[in-house]
Amino acid sequence: MKITVAGHASTNFGELWHKSLSDLLHEASFKAINNANLEEKDIEAIFVANKAAGSFEGQLHLGAMVSELFPHQPPAMRIEGACASGGLAVLAAEYALLAGQYKTVLVVGAEKMTDVSSEESTQVLAGAADLEKERGSTFPGLYALLAQAHMQKFGTTREMLSAVAVKNHLHAFDNEHAHFHKQFTLEQISQSALVADPLRLLDCSPISDGAAAVILTSKSLPTGKKNKAKILAFGHAQDSLTLAGRSSLTELLATKKAASQAYQMAGLKPNDIQVAKVHDCFTIAEILAIEDLGFFKKGEGGRATLAGKTSKNNKNSQIIINPYGGLKACGHPVGATGVKQIAYLAEILESKNYQFALAHNVGGSGATAVVHILGI
Amino acid sequence: MKITVAGHASTNFGELWHKSLSDLLHEASFKAINNANLEEKDIEAIFVANKAAGSFEGQLHLGAMVSELFPHQPPAMRIEGACASGGLAVLAAEYALLAGQYKTVLVVGAEKMTDVSSEESTQVLAGAADLEKERGSTFPGLYALLAQAHMQKFGTTREMLSAVAVKNHLHAFDNEHAHFHKQFTLEQISQSALVADPLRLLDCSPISDGAAAVILTSKSLPTGKKNKAKILAFGHAQDSLTLAGRSSLTELLATKKAASQAYQMAGLKPNDIQVAKVHDCFTIAEILAIEDLGFFKKGEGGRATLAGKTSKNNKNSQIIINPYGGLKACGHPVGATGVKQIAYLAEILESKNYQFALAHNVGGSGATAVVHILGI
Repeated sequence: MKITVAGHASTNFGELWHKSLSDLLHEASFKAINNANLEEKDIEAIFVANKAAGSFEGQLHLGAMVSELFPHQPPAMRIEGACASGGLAVLAAEYALLAGQYKTVLVVGAEKMTDVSSEESTQVLAGAADLEKERGSTFPGLYALLAQAHMQKFGTTREMLSAVAVKNHLHAFDNEHAHFHKQFTLEQISQSALVADPLRLLDCSPISDGAAAVILTSKSLPTGKKNKAKILAFGHAQDSLTLAGRSSLTELLATKKAASQAYQMAGLKPNDIQVAKVHDCFTIAEILAIEDLGFFKKGEGGRATLAGKTSKNNKNSQIIINPYGGLKACGHPVGATGVKQIAYLAEILESKNYQFALAHNVGGSGATAVVHILGI
Repeated sequence: MKITVAGHASTNFGELWHKSLSDLLHEASFKAINNANLEEKDIEAIFVANKAAGSFEGQLHLGAMVSELFPHQPPAMRIEGACASGGLAVLAAEYALLAGQYKTVLVVGAEKMTDVSSEESTQVLAGAADLEKERGSTFPGLYALLAQAHMQKFGTTREMLSAVAVKNHLHAFDNEHAHFHKQFTLEQISQSALVADPLRLLDCSPISDGAAAVILTSKSLPTGKKNKAKILAFGHAQDSLTLAGRSSLTELLATKKAASQAYQMAGLKPNDIQVAKVHDCFTIAEILAIEDLGFFKKGEGGRATLAGKTSKNNKNSQIIINPYGGLKACGHPVGATGVKQIAYLAEILESKNYQFALAHNVGGSGATAVVHILGI
């Protein structure tokens, strides 16, 4: 595969009451074009990731909205797969490039979530869960069930869940775009308000506004220019929408299948990956992810995290997980998340001494998973 | 391009109160698989077209919902571009096939619209129009402005608008899946209740439930089997979301650009096309379409329709437009529409003596246009 991340950008994530969805889409798109040293006319097509602007603010047809920011109005489409919308939009863009239809495209993801009440946003987010929503479940409730099962089967503890949050808040501390810049102790996480047992407030990723964008190109970049990250492989798999339909509650099968496809396509193994952005919508989700992606043995994710094996500031570190704070502390504007993962990994590969990076984006409680492997 | 429409299907269109969105997606998908003489395990990926299930019924993550209908849960994504969602989903599927990622995929489009009040559905549909919605415009209002401009500039008359509706209701009469099976006179159309001057109730496509599906494959089909339609070309273009941003009110520039791309890719001209399904969400939209697609000179679309030149039952006919009744009389379950066009054209190419057919799908008041050319 010959796709380069020519440019990447992110807006600030947080409660951005002074910015509209259109403002966010505009800011991320044009920052990415600048980062790529391209001009707006170089963008041949646009893939927009968004989960629920139709529900959050009665706004649909976002493809046309982004296209209109460009004088030449490139063809645009919106892709949705709940919280995996970003990863899927990157994938759709890759198909168009690999098909030879376009050579340089923009992928931009955004979500504007803080203009409605928490009650409304919880309802909208639960729209990805079908039957479970009808029976009163919310996402924290579903992930709480996954956490209960993991704790029971593998002895994962409250402290191990908290260790994920402590690390990700620490990782977000230097990220200027992060929703939160506040460090917590294990005790503070463990004693925060109970949301859905065992998950507490500080186990949960926040409701955020924000956008991220990448420019993907199949063109050869001029030699002598700054090294750019490449997309080496992808994987995409599904599982049952409902937990009741799953064969196991202690793993996300879609993640395992998508990762297996991506590793095979890249000719790499989990221990070749030095840095990963995984879908930590809840602390338990990061523990599941680092096991299902093969970085740690099943059941060992919590212990590994507590031992500092996933931290960027620890000499015991085995792989750096969510170096910018993840969904948990950087924020989770749903449509932006999967695109942000690719944008941030491209940045880290350009600026630090890593060779291979992995992005992991999940939709719903695990019904959709998209994995990308990047290299430089 | 080497993509074959291996199978195609449609549910009934109409007020289907006894069927859920999931029922409709299921019915269309499996009818198409049967029509293709395939088994469910042959489907490698799924592309779902839907505009607004999030708003109509709080349901998102439709990709995962359709995937779950299959024991092997193929990877799935949802594509949205307002009323052009169906055409865009077909396009995304084509990219994946042309990229070599998959060989046989399902595209299914559906919308469940009649479970909310007309007031609510009008609000949801207007979500595709951004600023104009804030200023109180609805889709009938926007297309009424286009009609006024066309009447003023080209002398298009009330009777010519009605001729579109009369023809499409006649064409729908034998279509078992059509929302309406009722014939009207020019007078009945012209005297129906005023909605947005000059558009009257019977100028408007209905709010419908329904689904349609196609199976697209890049495999060579066994020789000796029944002839199948092929996708020869596609085009995809955008224009301003708002009418205020357009250079002209008497044409849809996105249609012209998308058609030009498709004709060039196919190596064909407008007069090579014998049958077309165009996006007649309002009678004026069909008049604009048959001009912008190059079938008739600009300004002549209304006169040509009144003279029977687009009818399937008239010896004066020059090209058959909307042989199954179009959005106007067959119905317009938004996400299904663009997929239904491809499904019906594949059926007509298999069963009748035509060589080339064209599908034209529009989003919003013309901000997105997708054109496909099929052949056999």
